[in-house]
Amino acid sequence: SYGLWRQNEAHCDAVSDDKQRRAEGPITDSDPMRLRMESFIKGLQNRIVQDIEAIDGKQFSRTAWQRTEGGEGITCVLQDGNVFEKAGVGVSVVYGQLPKAAVEQMRHDRGKEITADGPVPFFAAGISLVMHPHNPNCPTVHLNYRYFEIENPDGTPKMWWFGGGSDLTPAYLFEDDAIHFHQVLKDGCDKTDKRYYKDFKQWCDKYFYIKHRGEARGIGGVFFDDLDDKPAEELFGFVKEMGNRFSTSYLPIVKKRMNMKFTPEMKRWQQIRRGRYVEFNLVWDRGTKFGLQTPGARIEAILMSLPLTSRWEYMQEPEASSEEADLVEVLKNPRDWVPLD
Amino acid sequence: SYGLWRQNEAHCDAVSDDKQRRAEGPITDSDPMRLRMESFIKGLQNRIVQDIEAIDGKQFSRTAWQRTEGGEGITCVLQDGNVFEKAGVGVSVVYGQLPKAAVEQMRHDRGKEITADGPVPFFAAGISLVMHPHNPNCPTVHLNYRYFEIENPDGTPKMWWFGGGSDLTPAYLFEDDAIHFHQVLKDGCDKTDKRYYKDFKQWCDKYFYIKHRGEARGIGGVFFDDLDDKPAEELFGFVKEMGNRFSTSYLPIVKKRMNMKFTPEMKRWQQIRRGRYVEFNLVWDRGTKFGLQTPGARIEAILMSLPLTSRWEYMQEPEASSEEADLVEVLKNPRDWVPLD
Repeated sequence: SYGLWRQNEAHCDAVSDDKQRRAEGPITDSDPMRLRMESFIKGLQNRIVQDIEAIDGKQFSRTAWQRTEGGEGITCVLQDGNVFEKAGVGVSVVYGQLPKAAVEQMRHDRGKEITADGPVPFFAAGISLVMHPHNPNCPTVHLNYRYFEIENPDGTPKMWWFGGGSDLTPAYLFEDDAIHFHQVLKDGCDKTDKRYYKDFKQWCDKYFYIKHRGEARGIGGVFFDDLDDKPAEELFGFVKEMGNRFSTSYLPIVKKRMNMKFTPEMKRWQQIRRGRYVEFNLVWDRGTKFGLQTPGARIEAILMSLPLTSRWEYMQEPEASSEEADLVEVLKNPRDWVPLD
Repeated sequence: SYGLWRQNEAHCDAVSDDKQRRAEGPITDSDPMRLRMESFIKGLQNRIVQDIEAIDGKQFSRTAWQRTEGGEGITCVLQDGNVFEKAGVGVSVVYGQLPKAAVEQMRHDRGKEITADGPVPFFAAGISLVMHPHNPNCPTVHLNYRYFEIENPDGTPKMWWFGGGSDLTPAYLFEDDAIHFHQVLKDGCDKTDKRYYKDFKQWCDKYFYIKHRGEARGIGGVFFDDLDDKPAEELFGFVKEMGNRFSTSYLPIVKKRMNMKFTPEMKRWQQIRRGRYVEFNLVWDRGTKFGLQTPGARIEAILMSLPLTSRWEYMQEPEASSEEADLVEVLKNPRDWVPLD
């Protein structure tokens, strides 16, 4: 979800304010949310990259990129590792101008009350990751958290919201893994609002749905967008809590599954499921679709989420009552992995 | 391009007329174009399947499907063959009703003067094929020819047109192959109209363009749509000529390349190019996009065009002046392979 916004040659005051503030020294809790979110996602990216390197044994390649107008990003990718076929963790911080058409779209899709005749300065910061392990017993994971601001002319936020979530995509279903993953996310949600998990779990099932297949991409997690129902301070706390739970939610599953025995047939099934992952991302994911249609977007960063390899067999159907059929059953009828209260 | 139109429970008179006529015996030149096109594409499918089986040594699986309302299809797929990783040849013949929204779309996109308050009966018959060989020296080929009719209440055509084309997608560029393929198509075009090749070659380059990569899917061929600028008889002759040229255009290339030596690096590059093929088909191909969004469409037939396997590497760039870079150069700047006259 970076490289998704039109990156015009434009200065809004937030750019220069933030640049100056960064030069003065470490960001603290009294700084603007833009800088605090940037600082958080960069730290989280570092910690996740280190955790994954410790498991995989291979280093990520790190690419930093910058925009002269303000804003930057760091993309870390591990390819053909020992445990991971492909793992990408990207961070981006963008200052730009929303074209009038995008403002209209936002008003229409999100009910945002933005009054503007021309382009509107915005800020977006996000972390995004996808990890595809080699072992078919080991699920793919996706995480994304982002903060968005529409600026007043003086650089203060006119409007802001958080979005994101995390979800799991196994090729073989281990109920314990699904329960563990959802429980960790639910515990995180519960700290801020007892209704969040239920709402965001359902939102996730609805969003990551491969319509033409009539099945979910995976076994879900949480997803939310346009979140501004509490003070920014509180929601930032929520997003930090959720982001920080990545390692707890996913790494125990990886460690449990990464060395399990598997057959060539299981690998084949995993590759077919990777094909479905590609189908969702290229056909249905709003962020990807929007990004690919945006002139000047960083295509490689957007498509970092695609698996290293995938497979399409004609009319491939799992055998009745096989483990493969069990997975498909759950994808067609999403389950509640932990009690919704 | 089958399974692409809404298949409602509806009878138009053409359905019963055609059914009766089929029962009476072989189709001749005095029969309606619907039946003649059906007969031609089924014959062509048979001949192509036999030609490919003779080269590959493995048989296609054949699936016939029917619609009670009228219309049917045959899908032939060869997977994991000796020469071909995946080859699919499908034929479909559909009688249905165009919903009002689709009529509006057609009026808007294609400038069709269809006056209708409600759904409009239509007929569509087409052949569609994609072949992905194992050997990275051997190019992928795509072909599709189709005939479309909008019916009067009495079953006579109110409006009709032909569409289709054929194009080549190599992972490694052999100029001889590109010239041969284009020359065979040009010779076919020239028999009907000396302007066709030039127009349809350019249309092909424009249509099979991966916008977000800034490159063509392959080295082109011909593509046309809404073709009704000559009598139906003449254009049917043109489409038959072009369809019949498939084996001449493609098989000599396959025979020349299928046993060439290749390295694992070449296979890897082929797999990356297959990933681009997937990107075009899922993100940009109008037919595929429309099909995937159509409730009740035959998804497996639509996605038959996807390669068996594909690959996405982050920031993969061919080395300067390598053979891989030569291909990309041609994809970024489509060449005229034969003089345009």
